[in-house]
Amino acid sequence: MSASTPKLSLNDDRLFPAEPPARKVARGIYRSVRDLPIISPHGHVPPQWLADDTPFADPTTLLLTPDHYINRLLHANGVDLEHLGVAQGELGEDAARAAFRTFCDHWPDFAGTAMSYWMREQLVGIFGVTVRPSAETADRIYDRIAGQLAEPEFQPRALLDTFGIRFLATTDDPCDDLAVHDRIDREVAITTRVAPTFRPDRYLEPGRPDWPELTRALGDAAGVDTSTLAGFTEAMEIRRRYFKDHGAVSSDHSHADLGTLFLDAAEGERIYALAQRGEASADECLALRRHLFTDQARMACEDGLTMTAHPAVARNHDPDAFARFGADVGADIPLGVEATRGLQPLLAAFGNHPNFTLVLFTIDETVYSRELGPLAGWYRAVHVGVPWWFLDAPDAILRFKSAVTEMAGFSRLSGMIDDTRAFFSIPARHDMSRRLDAAHLARLVVEHRLDEDEALDIAHRLVVEQPAKVFHL
Amino acid sequence: MSASTPKLSLNDDRLFPAEPPARKVARGIYRSVRDLPIISPHGHVPPQWLADDTPFADPTTLLLTPDHYINRLLHANGVDLEHLGVAQGELGEDAARAAFRTFCDHWPDFAGTAMSYWMREQLVGIFGVTVRPSAETADRIYDRIAGQLAEPEFQPRALLDTFGIRFLATTDDPCDDLAVHDRIDREVAITTRVAPTFRPDRYLEPGRPDWPELTRALGDAAGVDTSTLAGFTEAMEIRRRYFKDHGAVSSDHSHADLGTLFLDAAEGERIYALAQRGEASADECLALRRHLFTDQARMACEDGLTMTAHPAVARNHDPDAFARFGADVGADIPLGVEATRGLQPLLAAFGNHPNFTLVLFTIDETVYSRELGPLAGWYRAVHVGVPWWFLDAPDAILRFKSAVTEMAGFSRLSGMIDDTRAFFSIPARHDMSRRLDAAHLARLVVEHRLDEDEALDIAHRLVVEQPAKVFHL
Amino acid sequence: MSASTPKLSLNDDRLFPAEPPARKVARGIYRSVRDLPIISPHGHVPPQWLADDTPFADPTTLLLTPDHYINRLLHANGVDLEHLGVAQGELGEDAARAAFRTFCDHWPDFAGTAMSYWMREQLVGIFGVTVRPSAETADRIYDRIAGQLAEPEFQPRALLDTFGIRFLATTDDPCDDLAVHDRIDREVAITTRVAPTFRPDRYLEPGRPDWPELTRALGDAAGVDTSTLAGFTEAMEIRRRYFKDHGAVSSDHSHADLGTLFLDAAEGERIYALAQRGEASADECLALRRHLFTDQARMACEDGLTMTAHPAVARNHDPDAFARFGADVGADIPLGVEATRGLQPLLAAFGNHPNFTLVLFTIDETVYSRELGPLAGWYRAVHVGVPWWFLDAPDAILRFKSAVTEMAGFSRLSGMIDDTRAFFSIPARHDMSRRLDAAHLARLVVEHRLDEDEALDIAHRLVVEQPAKVFHL
Repeated sequence: MSASTPKLSLNDDRLFPAEPPARKVARGIYRSVRDLPIISPHGHVPPQWLADDTPFADPTTLLLTPDHYINRLLHANGVDLEHLGVAQGELGEDAARAAFRTFCDHWPDFAGTAMSYWMREQLVGIFGVTVRPSAETADRIYDRIAGQLAEPEFQPRALLDTFGIRFLATTDDPCDDLAVHDRIDREVAITTRVAPTFRPDRYLEPGRPDWPELTRALGDAAGVDTSTLAGFTEAMEIRRRYFKDHGAVSSDHSHADLGTLFLDAAEGERIYALAQRGEASADECLALRRHLFTDQARMACEDGLTMTAHPAVARNHDPDAFARFGADVGADIPLGVEATRGLQPLLAAFGNHPNFTLVLFTIDETVYSRELGPLAGWYRAVHVGVPWWFLDAPDAILRFKSAVTEMAGFSRLSGMIDDTRAFFSIPARHDMSRRLDAAHLARLVVEHRLDEDEALDIAHRLVVEQPAKVFHL
Repeated sequence: MSASTPKLSLNDDRLFPAEPPARKVARGIYRSVRDLPIISPHGHVPPQWLADDTPFADPTTLLLTPDHYINRLLHANGVDLEHLGVAQGELGEDAARAAFRTFCDHWPDFAGTAMSYWMREQLVGIFGVTVRPSAETADRIYDRIAGQLAEPEFQPRALLDTFGIRFLATTDDPCDDLAVHDRIDREVAITTRVAPTFRPDRYLEPGRPDWPELTRALGDAAGVDTSTLAGFTEAMEIRRRYFKDHGAVSSDHSHADLGTLFLDAAEGERIYALAQRGEASADECLALRRHLFTDQARMACEDGLTMTAHPAVARNHDPDAFARFGADVGADIPLGVEATRGLQPLLAAFGNHPNFTLVLFTIDETVYSRELGPLAGWYRAVHVGVPWWFLDAPDAILRFKSAVTEMAGFSRLSGMIDDTRAFFSIPARHDMSRRLDAAHLARLVVEHRLDEDEALDIAHRLVVEQPAKVFHL
Repeated sequence: MSASTPKLSLNDDRLFPAEPPARKVARGIYRSVRDLPIISPHGHVPPQWLADDTPFADPTTLLLTPDHYINRLLHANGVDLEHLGVAQGELGEDAARAAFRTFCDHWPDFAGTAMSYWMREQLVGIFGVTVRPSAETADRIYDRIAGQLAEPEFQPRALLDTFGIRFLATTDDPCDDLAVHDRIDREVAITTRVAPTFRPDRYLEPGRPDWPELTRALGDAAGVDTSTLAGFTEAMEIRRRYFKDHGAVSSDHSHADLGTLFLDAAEGERIYALAQRGEASADECLALRRHLFTDQARMACEDGLTMTAHPAVARNHDPDAFARFGADVGADIPLGVEATRGLQPLLAAFGNHPNFTLVLFTIDETVYSRELGPLAGWYRAVHVGVPWWFLDAPDAILRFKSAVTEMAGFSRLSGMIDDTRAFFSIPARHDMSRRLDAAHLARLVVEHRLDEDEALDIAHRLVVEQPAKVFHL
């Protein structure tokens, strides 16, 4: 390694405002929450990792292959996803090393992005890397990480402790028997509470070719005949309760819009029957999906699972990538979303129900000040989820705070949700969140819109009380 | 009160940029406009208060019950509006005190919001409160305010002087005989000019069940038969002129969109006749409303009343709250709005008319840079109204300035509009506006995009010349 | 000139953050790119100026008449476009002087705008003016500029060198024989590469009354019978290749939306034939236009011309101004735009084609973080164009950077595009861009999200490598 190899390090003041009085206040606020445990009420870590506690395979499989934030920008810059191991099964050592080198070589394409921020946190903070990724340094970094992954303290369970994760939610299919979660629960060495999340999206989309089959699978899982809507509804209720009984605190929903409505029983059964035969029109499928989504809110009032909504993504926008690599590889693109009119039927029915909590996420930031803040500032059930996916980056997070908190305050926020499948990035994401909380609150303090002790209270509230309240922990 | 009771105070530099050179410039700009009289060309203060000059009842009835900004966030946090006195008639002493205590107890839910900013201004600046609201301090604060409200200098007229309000517009029904305004006019002790505002919304919505009845009332007020559109139009013209003769400077309009069009006379009469019988379709009602709105612009070219538009609110979003408490209690939610295409017919006809002024407000901030700024930067009639309602908070106001002034400059802005029914918050809202003018201009100065003397001129222009020009004062 | 006449000057630190550490970093970054040559891959300078190299007529004809940014705000403030020389043929000396005086008198209406920023740059930086424009100083400034315009070093070709313009693209009709460009090419005294740009908008709009005639003209230019869609397509291919052979690097497209689709050959011919006879419906015209636009992308994959899209402007919004002054005089207003669904058919077909580059511009800034950034962060062809038109101002440019680069990085940006017809403003616009690059990058550095050497690399990349890559220079 030459003397001029650029260094990689973490500055204690990262993400804080540059202006000295605000930076000083930010430091104090951050210090007060820095070491609090992590609560992660929604995410995509595979529970199998924790149940099996097998060492992670290699740096590429761990840090690059599953991270569609990284994949997508590499793809845009000409890298084949195959080369990164996406949908390729196990990578051999050579392939893994080559992929890692490619990433390091493309490091400048990530400069200034959230991905480079999180990766730096992991490289320096977890693996002790001290040189900037590049074609020259790639192998050295790879070797360092690979060596550490073989150590016991880098096995999944040990890291749960090291990372200070007190609560971790996974995302699961309604038909899942949750046996893996049961194994984790029975494992006394795991002190983290690992909860499943009920994610019924596919079962609520009557327009899918495989929907009739999915409804039968749901019926089998619930022990109920789902050939009618009434049966389907009962099966959903049974499976939700099964999840609740196995520790779930929320259900998660991602459809193309936030439209809600109630079909009367006859009309619902009529469309359901058509859809079972693949004969429902697109409009009928849409109406039934909206009804089924709205009905999940009714169920939530009864069973108390918090409902999180992640709407309006054009999934699998690139059909060639979808054909080659399947879903969730990075070719999803945001859509505009509308909440005020779309959610009105649902909120008119359940918006102030004492047992209902609805967390609204968006990747269309125009609705923050226009719709989500105002809705959460009135309806008792509604909370605004923190910035998600394409908005999960420092400036976007500060825009979110600015757009929502001036009118809705901090009591209507979800608290931090990392929503990640990149296990090693969880501490970095929560730390970024706490730093930006501090940066935002410090600005309010130096502009004399908030007293410093109030800022400290809010910082704590965002990390501890809000997630506990919103997810009934 | 214990020694550790948190204090409440007002820092002289509040809302100014923290960075020292910018803060210094901001102070100078602010000082130059701080003490100028308040011009309030659009708002919702009841004129009866000024005509009768009776002392205000109690702190709750004055500061909380009528303020739907405060009501809504308390509602979201579990407080019943009944408990706050909404739609309850007169509150007794115990109920008023209990409601005030509830608010104080929820003070942390308001931390960092515009509502806490304005309330702090009123508590410290007007009532001399020095302790932060909390369950512990609630009674003490209540007593202090209640005691002051009994003093003559806290009666409405005295406060008009204390607050330095030179012009105050109320909002009034087209059928109002304006007798209350006449009483105010004749009262030599009132030096503030108190003007009515013509607000014909309900009369322009043929889809309302009570619309036929409203048109008859309008006809009665105008002394014209309104069974035809021609008669309705004449009645509107008469009532507008009546308002103008009684000091009105503007009409105000709030519909669900900004669509405009011209119906030819025959089609207009046809739909009007159908609507009178409750037989017009939804599309016909919409077309007629858009025609009637557009026709108000034609009238404005003739009578010179400035036209203000506050579009795109989903009113009474929560039907249960509407049933229990009626309109305007906080369950209104913004909608997206479109101006470029919607207003084109109106602007093609009247957009450069020398006698026409149109002030466009929005609670959908996406149209600032995309539509409102560009429209105001071309059409002579069009001015951009300052941030309204859910956007009337420091960061949102600065976003507005940033989005509009780089291309449209400052000559196309309305100047400050407080639009409030919270009488005691008027000085706070205008002071906030002047501070943010200073903060924004100071940034332009330190970035060398504006000279300091230009900034001083603009600050004065925004407080004095722009409202005078836009509202023909 | 009195002693109190306000001065006009340029501060070295203009547009940099006020906060000292960030300002220091910004200075260093800016210094590293300040003197690099200008690459202007899209704009509207008339090539005739460069071919003829005749001196510019007078200050008004040069600086005001063709600048619709200035025209529009003067119009809003009551000035007739006639008076500014718009669509009036040659202005006499008196009229030119009077128009210039009017502009100077309205200088305060421009305070704080991008227009005043660029004008100050030109007045001070190019013409050495030292007093602020006003009624009092207008003649003096006019005389100074007029005197200089008569000097050889202010002739167009000399200025190409003075301004350091290495590459300059004009905008041209597909039927243009490019003889003027040939003359420029043959002129050894011109070292700047002056390239035509293929702008076929009008030919792709079958709904235009003059469209059949335009298709015939295109056929004549290409030597192909365009009475069928197949012929039209061949003609387009021929003309694109003609442009490419004459140095063009891109085609430019501005339609009311970004809708794309493929018509099969029979349906395409059917609608084409109807449209030739003026008998196609509005929906058919729209479908055919979207097909023709999409087909330009197919051609781009073959001939390698970069495709730039400037969508969603409501052209000629003010029919009276259009009747009196024609198109492009300032009465164009932005529309909302949608890219995710609209472009999906085009991107599914060509989005990752190795020979295709698509640069997306917008004047609806809501799509930056929601659609353009995410699209450019996946598709290899897609790059995000820098802020355009109503968004081409300092704060808007910083909002753009903030919205796009955190997720898409800097490798997916077009680099600076000035898109101007105001020749003398080209250096000011590129300098503004470099200053804002520096301001943005400096903030990332002081927030420790980027190392200083990385910031220097990115600044260089944005000025040199990105335009070279995106426009294949």
